[in-house]
Amino acid sequence: MIPDPGAFAVFAAASLALVPASSSAQEPAAKNRVVMQVSDNDPGKWNLALNNARNLQADLGAGNVAIEIVAYGPGIGMLKHDSVVGTRVGEALASGVRVEACENTMRGQKLAKTDMLSGIGDVPAGVVEIMQKQQQGWAYIRP
Amino acid sequence: MIPDPGAFAVFAAASLALVPASSSAQEPAAKNRVVMQVSDNDPGKWNLALNNARNLQADLGAGNVAIEIVAYGPGIGMLKHDSVVGTRVGEALASGVRVEACENTMRGQKLAKTDMLSGIGDVPAGVVEIMQKQQQGWAYIRP
Amino acid sequence: MIPDPGAFAVFAAASLALVPASSSAQEPAAKNRVVMQVSDNDPGKWNLALNNARNLQADLGAGNVAIEIVAYGPGIGMLKHDSVVGTRVGEALASGVRVEACENTMRGQKLAKTDMLSGIGDVPAGVVEIMQKQQQGWAYIRP
Repeated sequence: MIPDPGAFAVFAAASLALVPASSSAQEPAAKNRVVMQVSDNDPGKWNLALNNARNLQADLGAGNVAIEIVAYGPGIGMLKHDSVVGTRVGEALASGVRVEACENTMRGQKLAKTDMLSGIGDVPAGVVEIMQKQQQGWAYIRP
Repeated sequence: MIPDPGAFAVFAAASLALVPASSSAQEPAAKNRVVMQVSDNDPGKWNLALNNARNLQADLGAGNVAIEIVAYGPGIGMLKHDSVVGTRVGEALASGVRVEACENTMRGQKLAKTDMLSGIGDVPAGVVEIMQKQQQGWAYIRP
Repeated sequence: MIPDPGAFAVFAAASLALVPASSSAQEPAAKNRVVMQVSDNDPGKWNLALNNARNLQADLGAGNVAIEIVAYGPGIGMLKHDSVVGTRVGEALASGVRVEACENTMRGQKLAKTDMLSGIGDVPAGVVEIMQKQQQGWAYIRP
């Protein structure tokens, strides 16, 4: 039997319209993405953040989790060139962790990029970065 | 050609059923909304929360970001009338930040509304408020 | 009138294809689910987490909110058998709160299950658990 061309049109329209809905329903499960906040002037917290990053990588595989550490306010000392955790920050960077300093905080504390550990990045405002990452579906950890 | 009325019915049903799926697919990107928790008895943390709010507004434009600060537990002192950051809380309120005290905490500490800064609001339970804001898609910042 | 069988096929296909989209659009609003992090060596924070859990249950009804407390790093002391909040942890467990110790931390501190409070559970890595709960839509509270 030759189907009614009107029904064909319906089928085509319905299929087309369904694409966004059904493709979104088939999206992979949430990716492993974590933004970590460091805002305490406390080397214990800095080490805890670095431990957390290492444990995430150990458990999930370093290639299976995106990690970004954002330091701002009183936490900025973690990323200064004389930081007591400088070596560990370097190891984290080498393992694929992104480490970002807050430019607002750097300006407030008159810190130049040369005052900071090498290899790190910076973001205009740490708190905006953390908000935006959550908007994009990243989990938030505040060690 | 006159389409088969049966096909018309299909078209109508399919269109109707698709509305929720396709409208949700076209929703705007997540709005800038941040709920901030203040639960430490530490004026440094109170100032950091207020700095965070100011930086969010400076970076995004005060009209482009909704900010709510919720103080509870040991953080309630931030919002008492003798708070060391009372002037800054007033400035935050004037700039459009919502500031909410936890009624559970006020009751526990025998604080009346007259013991608190003027202009602030209150919520039945700070922790419930913070949970619900996250459920509604607000980002969470714990300074 | 007898509908065109072609149109019937379209209707069936469209209905089938729509099931995932429309059922997801009709899902109930976000459930009340909260994962709480305890990572400070500070009994004040341990009590605050337990207060938060109690207030969530009091406000929403214990049956209407799922609560999981995850202790890791310096917070693990909350769940040792000699914990100063051991009795309160037992009460939380009895009221339906899940309480989980981080196995990574236990291994690092050479703690066996017999060193811990009875009734609690454990997770391979506290930080991974907290990330995954957020991925599944749980709100995050860091007291």
